[in-house]
Amino acid sequence: MKESAVKKIAVFTSGGDSPGMNAALRAVVRTASYYNLECYGVREGYNGLINNDFTRMGPRSVKNIITEGGTILKSARSKEFMTKEGRQKAYDNCVKHGIEGMVCIGGDGTFKGAKIFYEEYGIKVIGIPGTIDNDIFGTDNTIGYDTALNTAMEAIDKIRDTATSHNRVFFVEVMGRDAGFIALNSGLATGAIDILIPEKKDSIEDLFEVFERAEKAGKSSSIVVVAEGEKLGSIYDLAKATQVGFPDYDIRVTILGHIQRGGSPSCADRVLASRLGYGAVIGLMEGKTNVMAGMQSNKLTYTSIEEAIKKHNEMDQELLKISEILAI
Amino acid sequence: MKESAVKKIAVFTSGGDSPGMNAALRAVVRTASYYNLECYGVREGYNGLINNDFTRMGPRSVKNIITEGGTILKSARSKEFMTKEGRQKAYDNCVKHGIEGMVCIGGDGTFKGAKIFYEEYGIKVIGIPGTIDNDIFGTDNTIGYDTALNTAMEAIDKIRDTATSHNRVFFVEVMGRDAGFIALNSGLATGAIDILIPEKKDSIEDLFEVFERAEKAGKSSSIVVVAEGEKLGSIYDLAKATQVGFPDYDIRVTILGHIQRGGSPSCADRVLASRLGYGAVIGLMEGKTNVMAGMQSNKLTYTSIEEAIKKHNEMDQELLKISEILAI
Amino acid sequence: MKESAVKKIAVFTSGGDSPGMNAALRAVVRTASYYNLECYGVREGYNGLINNDFTRMGPRSVKNIITEGGTILKSARSKEFMTKEGRQKAYDNCVKHGIEGMVCIGGDGTFKGAKIFYEEYGIKVIGIPGTIDNDIFGTDNTIGYDTALNTAMEAIDKIRDTATSHNRVFFVEVMGRDAGFIALNSGLATGAIDILIPEKKDSIEDLFEVFERAEKAGKSSSIVVVAEGEKLGSIYDLAKATQVGFPDYDIRVTILGHIQRGGSPSCADRVLASRLGYGAVIGLMEGKTNVMAGMQSNKLTYTSIEEAIKKHNEMDQELLKISEILAI
Amino acid sequence: MKESAVKKIAVFTSGGDSPGMNAALRAVVRTASYYNLECYGVREGYNGLINNDFTRMGPRSVKNIITEGGTILKSARSKEFMTKEGRQKAYDNCVKHGIEGMVCIGGDGTFKGAKIFYEEYGIKVIGIPGTIDNDIFGTDNTIGYDTALNTAMEAIDKIRDTATSHNRVFFVEVMGRDAGFIALNSGLATGAIDILIPEKKDSIEDLFEVFERAEKAGKSSSIVVVAEGEKLGSIYDLAKATQVGFPDYDIRVTILGHIQRGGSPSCADRVLASRLGYGAVIGLMEGKTNVMAGMQSNKLTYTSIEEAIKKHNEMDQELLKISEILAI
Repeated sequence: MKESAVKKIAVFTSGGDSPGMNAALRAVVRTASYYNLECYGVREGYNGLINNDFTRMGPRSVKNIITEGGTILKSARSKEFMTKEGRQKAYDNCVKHGIEGMVCIGGDGTFKGAKIFYEEYGIKVIGIPGTIDNDIFGTDNTIGYDTALNTAMEAIDKIRDTATSHNRVFFVEVMGRDAGFIALNSGLATGAIDILIPEKKDSIEDLFEVFERAEKAGKSSSIVVVAEGEKLGSIYDLAKATQVGFPDYDIRVTILGHIQRGGSPSCADRVLASRLGYGAVIGLMEGKTNVMAGMQSNKLTYTSIEEAIKKHNEMDQELLKISEILAI
Repeated sequence: MKESAVKKIAVFTSGGDSPGMNAALRAVVRTASYYNLECYGVREGYNGLINNDFTRMGPRSVKNIITEGGTILKSARSKEFMTKEGRQKAYDNCVKHGIEGMVCIGGDGTFKGAKIFYEEYGIKVIGIPGTIDNDIFGTDNTIGYDTALNTAMEAIDKIRDTATSHNRVFFVEVMGRDAGFIALNSGLATGAIDILIPEKKDSIEDLFEVFERAEKAGKSSSIVVVAEGEKLGSIYDLAKATQVGFPDYDIRVTILGHIQRGGSPSCADRVLASRLGYGAVIGLMEGKTNVMAGMQSNKLTYTSIEEAIKKHNEMDQELLKISEILAI
Repeated sequence: MKESAVKKIAVFTSGGDSPGMNAALRAVVRTASYYNLECYGVREGYNGLINNDFTRMGPRSVKNIITEGGTILKSARSKEFMTKEGRQKAYDNCVKHGIEGMVCIGGDGTFKGAKIFYEEYGIKVIGIPGTIDNDIFGTDNTIGYDTALNTAMEAIDKIRDTATSHNRVFFVEVMGRDAGFIALNSGLATGAIDILIPEKKDSIEDLFEVFERAEKAGKSSSIVVVAEGEKLGSIYDLAKATQVGFPDYDIRVTILGHIQRGGSPSCADRVLASRLGYGAVIGLMEGKTNVMAGMQSNKLTYTSIEEAIKKHNEMDQELLKISEILAI
Repeated sequence: MKESAVKKIAVFTSGGDSPGMNAALRAVVRTASYYNLECYGVREGYNGLINNDFTRMGPRSVKNIITEGGTILKSARSKEFMTKEGRQKAYDNCVKHGIEGMVCIGGDGTFKGAKIFYEEYGIKVIGIPGTIDNDIFGTDNTIGYDTALNTAMEAIDKIRDTATSHNRVFFVEVMGRDAGFIALNSGLATGAIDILIPEKKDSIEDLFEVFERAEKAGKSSSIVVVAEGEKLGSIYDLAKATQVGFPDYDIRVTILGHIQRGGSPSCADRVLASRLGYGAVIGLMEGKTNVMAGMQSNKLTYTSIEEAIKKHNEMDQELLKISEILAI
């Protein structure tokens, strides 16, 4: 390998946390150490850059964290980094530590910050997509998404037990403010009779038709999975409207909430995080910047941060159709 | 063994379902079969008695259900059974099938129905305590309680991951309308800084003091576990009041909800359910009636249904104290 | 959609079972029903074809099986189907039921049978890759692989707890007779210090070097993950050789075994199985035959069965390298 | 509370580790801190006493460990402590640190060491029963037992999936060198057709009879759970003998092994460990010594160490009978 383009790097996690961030962090730190780069962990995302909260990290600092949810570096959304003054402080601290490259683990907001920081100050940045929402372009899956799917599925499986025992209708809200990936996949995996997601035009009439069809098919209990960002109305509105339309139904609402952000990462997430952590460091060493490391078709790729933020993984129309067919 | 006091029995599940009801049902059916009793399953609790929804059950009818949450006989709360007419219909159906004894799996409400039915018509009844709330006297644990504890604990462990990563305060509501057992035990098991339960006199002042102490102790994130039936206010009220008192806190609310009623039963619940199902049939064979089968200090016991309903397992004061000491 | 090429189809599971086979079966049956095809389930794979063990299946026959491991149609390896006479009987039974197309869920052996049956008798066949080993070409993942990875990983995580507490060295064998996918991925995900797989030339010297490096790095406990099909020797031989080389080590061996074949499928496996079940039926309807349905880069694809059997997913060299780097 | 009998205490874990040891340790440290005792953690059990491996511990030293399997203090079996010289060194180190009381978390062997140490040197000792085997008298459950039961049960549930799919017979070995508690309870919970434990006189004839009965009852797959310490023969011998007796059976053997020692503790184990940790410190403060803290019928009790070692929890004959009845 020819000489590395960077000798000192920093790594941090930012934005909403997701299972596997620790695994990515571990991979960054150990890969850096393997290639004799100095590596600093920055606490609480961009706030740590501004507040000079840097720690030297070596292979032993990330011991055993591959199994842990959350992020040992902690995460935050930083208002101050959105100001010119905040970024200047951050840059001064980077200079102080001799940081030449940064690995930024997070989602949309994290990447926007990285991009502007690079453009203003020239410190090389590589992003790693860590978010349960899977709404980042340039990678088949984001870190944490697979774990969140399993968490949501297991919770809905449990709800199914009690729904069936009582012939009840459950509306279950899963995370996803702008993206229905968790809803569509966990709904498909749990045999939901309907799945409401922001990417699809839903209507109360369609929903009612689904209930009528389910009744005719002899289903005595039903689960409807709703993405947080569903545009037809809040999950409580939907439940109320359904109660009016079907006064006999015994309806319950469950919002799965923050359990979806936690938990020990799945094997797929640990492997993905390990590969992207490795890929980010290799990328910096090769002189790459302003890109995001991703896995596409099982290959390590680099996508410009601009594209990663602007473009979107399309909701798979075939998958939507399959979810309808299989709920018959 | 001398001759059995009953030759034909019925079994049903009633009230809120709980993990392990199927295991209890399996034990009733197989024990009955082993001792050559005829056994009928009744669907949807007392409604099935009224609507004559009886099925003959044998060892193979309960194959593999020991692993399953919910209840294959389904459960319901029956308004009609609260009327004299309803119970008369139920009795007529029992006579039609020659039922001499009944095993009723459920909680408080189920037992009240059984008691009045026995008093009015003389059909022998034995109750099995199946409820996640653990609020039945005469048994150390109710069926489903241990599983619900693990479900609540695992969910709160996941919330802990994200709470820690973001320095957040979480209010988590667990089930328990009148009883704080789930809250106290799952809160203790997850290191909650405070646990609010109906059996204890709580105040906002005490809660605030706990937060202040936690801050002084250097805790940057906190979880407060609240029982559904907490009297100080709804979990949203508590969160709002806390936000006013501590404007800097980043507070979130999660209501675990019906996931706590489902899931494959824990080993302890499967074993408990198996023993109680066996015990109920043996009890009927020995001529017992109007009692509940329970396990106390690892021994099978029978408590009068009256006592089981009226008395209450006291909240363990020592356990409350321990939960405070260990949250320092 | 233009007219379907087939009107009556059969579906079966064959070879070693894997989690998600039921989900695939459910998808085949419901998709067939949706498109008004008649669908027959055949029990115990090719044996059922020979023994005329066919059942008509509709949407309700596959109710709730998406959550279940194993296969409700049961599976078997059939010696009789390897004979000309056996296949003739199977064909006669297919003719009796008017079967025009078959969906065969299984691995290598299953596909070989399907191929020869098609070539001899012309009944259209489409394969669905169901095996935990992930050793089928033409799909990124096989059904069951993701679940098996999580099962292996969770078991090794547990072993890690006790290894660390006692400063022990564990050799853990995972499944994979010819393929090291489970070993490589679960080993990477659990921080194994070495991973021995049939695709890589291993030596005792290399293994010893790894132990020496781990000691120098200050590791007091270690896990070595070994694929079932590792060529260097049995796991017991490896443990013994290590004990001779490092007499002070406290060494233990665990063979994870058949737990890796069971369990409720992961969300990824349920979704994959649903998509492939759908894809297989659609393929038959479009007149396809002698192909396998797969998912590649998140797209449904069809690969000739010949290719699926002969070619092999290459072990990812980069992933091997990453596993070494991250174990420092 | 009157004055404490001790001001400085030490705590350690010894012998085979079990899930919940960390929770017990946390409770000891925090209770000590709450009552203003100085508390030292000793690493690697009695070896740490001998090698002077003491660390001062406070509430933050045990942060978040309640969720973790294993023991952060590590465990070991100490040969040197069995010698007079070893114990003298240990005592000298205790004197150096001013240790007046010790909490010893472990099993039989641990308690024997504690007893002799107290008798020789007069340092007060209280034991906490931490072992997955549940073979300690004076407590309804030992710490780790409930978690191990769930781990074994979940593993056998997975094996059931593949056993059923292939009509196979599985012999599954669970831990328990002298005690059949894990085998009996996990076997009952998973519907094993037979359970072989050291406390019961088994014979090959009885086992064969069970197989014959199962066949007649129409069971096509079976699981036999065998305790590690079963006296009839090794699990491989049993499998071989069965193969000879039933040449058509497709038999497999699985040894669950060390996965049973690890994993995040169950809620019941975390609560038990918390109560016993608290109870041990309170006991020392009250001047108790040479006793073990236990929970019996949900009450904290103290049993003399002598009794705890010598007496044994009897295998419940009724439970054995129930396991037979329910396997029909």
